[in-house]
Amino acid sequence: MTKHEKAKAFDLARREADEPSSPVVRFGAEAPLKLVSGAVLAPWQCAYQTYGTLNADRSNAILICHALTGDQHVANSHPVTGKPGWWQTMVGPGRPLDTDRFFIICANVLGGCMGTTGPSSTNPATGKPWGLDLPVVTIHDMVDAQARLIDHLGIDTLFAVAGGSMGGMQVLQWASSYPERVFAALPIAAAARHSAQNIAFGEVGRQAVMADPEWRGGHYLEAGTRPEKGLAVARMGAHITYLSEAALHSKFGRRFQNRSAPGFHFDADFQVESYLRHQGLSFVERFDANSYLYVTRAMDYFDLAADHGGVLARAFRGSKTRFCVISFTSDWLFPTSESRQIVKALNAAAASVSFVEIETDKGHDAFLLDVPELTTTVRGFLDAAAKARGLKVAS
Amino acid sequence: MTKHEKAKAFDLARREADEPSSPVVRFGAEAPLKLVSGAVLAPWQCAYQTYGTLNADRSNAILICHALTGDQHVANSHPVTGKPGWWQTMVGPGRPLDTDRFFIICANVLGGCMGTTGPSSTNPATGKPWGLDLPVVTIHDMVDAQARLIDHLGIDTLFAVAGGSMGGMQVLQWASSYPERVFAALPIAAAARHSAQNIAFGEVGRQAVMADPEWRGGHYLEAGTRPEKGLAVARMGAHITYLSEAALHSKFGRRFQNRSAPGFHFDADFQVESYLRHQGLSFVERFDANSYLYVTRAMDYFDLAADHGGVLARAFRGSKTRFCVISFTSDWLFPTSESRQIVKALNAAAASVSFVEIETDKGHDAFLLDVPELTTTVRGFLDAAAKARGLKVAS
Repeated sequence: MTKHEKAKAFDLARREADEPSSPVVRFGAEAPLKLVSGAVLAPWQCAYQTYGTLNADRSNAILICHALTGDQHVANSHPVTGKPGWWQTMVGPGRPLDTDRFFIICANVLGGCMGTTGPSSTNPATGKPWGLDLPVVTIHDMVDAQARLIDHLGIDTLFAVAGGSMGGMQVLQWASSYPERVFAALPIAAAARHSAQNIAFGEVGRQAVMADPEWRGGHYLEAGTRPEKGLAVARMGAHITYLSEAALHSKFGRRFQNRSAPGFHFDADFQVESYLRHQGLSFVERFDANSYLYVTRAMDYFDLAADHGGVLARAFRGSKTRFCVISFTSDWLFPTSESRQIVKALNAAAASVSFVEIETDKGHDAFLLDVPELTTTVRGFLDAAAKARGLKVAS
Repeated sequence: MTKHEKAKAFDLARREADEPSSPVVRFGAEAPLKLVSGAVLAPWQCAYQTYGTLNADRSNAILICHALTGDQHVANSHPVTGKPGWWQTMVGPGRPLDTDRFFIICANVLGGCMGTTGPSSTNPATGKPWGLDLPVVTIHDMVDAQARLIDHLGIDTLFAVAGGSMGGMQVLQWASSYPERVFAALPIAAAARHSAQNIAFGEVGRQAVMADPEWRGGHYLEAGTRPEKGLAVARMGAHITYLSEAALHSKFGRRFQNRSAPGFHFDADFQVESYLRHQGLSFVERFDANSYLYVTRAMDYFDLAADHGGVLARAFRGSKTRFCVISFTSDWLFPTSESRQIVKALNAAAASVSFVEIETDKGHDAFLLDVPELTTTVRGFLDAAAKARGLKVAS
């Protein structure tokens, strides 16, 4: 990307904050969003994408919840990067989340940077970007915001809620906060609480952003700058946790760039270094640094059991939702043990649950990739749920 | 630490580069050190500490090789921080590395910042600190430098060479480069090559340092500044990899600082965040940022098999050294599988080797901690080796 292209991409990303290219629902002073922290947000807005057609009885809607640095552009090319949607393997005509049968919705999360209110949105009180004056948001708040969008779309009950990683946390929160509105739930590579190690990784990323002098106490947008270097370091560190040792080994091993022997320098001498640097650089073109702080913080604060007297099963008591919990063998960020805790709690709550641990060396990122067993599992679960729900092909 | 104390600690750390409080051997133009890269270093110097007494036939010397951010202050209080030596659990009268029996040597590694030539040392050609003009050094170079020190001390054969992590890499290199000079070798929590994932973690740390504008292309010392924030971020990230999920969970869990509920802010709200920040801040008081680049790079380039046609066993062919390889169950940075590769190669080379995998939840850092099974294993191995070597109590 040339400097000009970068500047253009940034302008686009910046514009997406207040004037997104996605449809937006604006909630005014009469429709505030009360946050878990006690703060109240008004006005606020929610940007989203939809695919497929809502059927006559409004029973075929699937809400996809996106992960940390994802957004609503699930199955269309991204307005900033021009890249394909992040879940095109899963969403589309004839795919498991079949747009010929289902009405698919995905909203940018609260705190994000693609049109839903976040720290780069304009603070109505000052006319300037919110920055760190935006109240801290939680997974619970993200879900409440989505529920307001679903109300707006006139949908009472979602046929399914699905998502991986932070998206999976939202799925669990949906099933807990609005059990009667979720027919089926698919938390993938998720956890019911963020572990100490994951909080630690999150903190390193935030410190990397805040250590960059261009962060300017969170007021970089007013200054016309961005903490690009700090955010790139944060992304590089996080990216390692999304993969697995086996995946890195088979993908890069100890291979050098453009040579067969060490270069004895501090440039990217190994292929894995070059790959990581690229991950960092391409990320900062599309993502807002303050949003990174907010969404990682939301994950840190997620602890569904803590909200229910320390007993996770209580979060799902009496639930009629059908759950399909999916984990990946090589995922060390959200390991299978975390999914087992969810399954155990669902069993204790006498909920309907199936559990699939998928064998793969692709690590946490497997939920985003073309993993045949994942596709088959999601398709099978949704087909059975659709039958149980009496769903027909969308007219 | 107050600002004044910090400045004082920094001055001390800076002074240690050229005028260390440890004994130093200075090698002049007539005694250059030829590096693996082809570069030649002259003059150069090596700072070290010793404990105990060398016996009459000079057969009771044990060389300890320190880890990435360690130094020669194994069993005395640190001249900069005032803290106890980093291996006082293992080294001292009556301890496994018994200073009543053995003559213990530990040298600051080449590229380090506690008196051995490193990037903060004065470049004789310019009279200024080397910075990134110092040639890149390797584990092989570190070991060659130590061999020159051992020559200087008049020791032909070391009774043992021992070390954990990067120290363990040096142990393996010693046994390969100088098999006739090593009677017994103790590589702990080590590997014969740095994995792709570990190179990736190293690169994130280096990028964090280099992203700090105070790094100034490596010339911060001339400018009277230091890339403290970048180095602290690097240390925080690395520190997570030294522990284990289980250790972080039992030590901190999701406990908050000074309260029982979330504070909804970006300060250190969780105990694990406060702990990590402390690790970052205390590290920058004693360690040089450029040294961090050099020593992490040395680990990246370590690949003992590659130096022997891709066959690790060839690195140890005909070895008479007795090996004791030790790993820890919860170490995910240098997992047991890496130690097994070493053991396999030693077996293929028909070398004498015992292997102990120690059950602990303390992660990679277990080699530095008071782990009873580690102490017992090292004591047993050294006692048996001493008997085989015909060693008596030092006179």
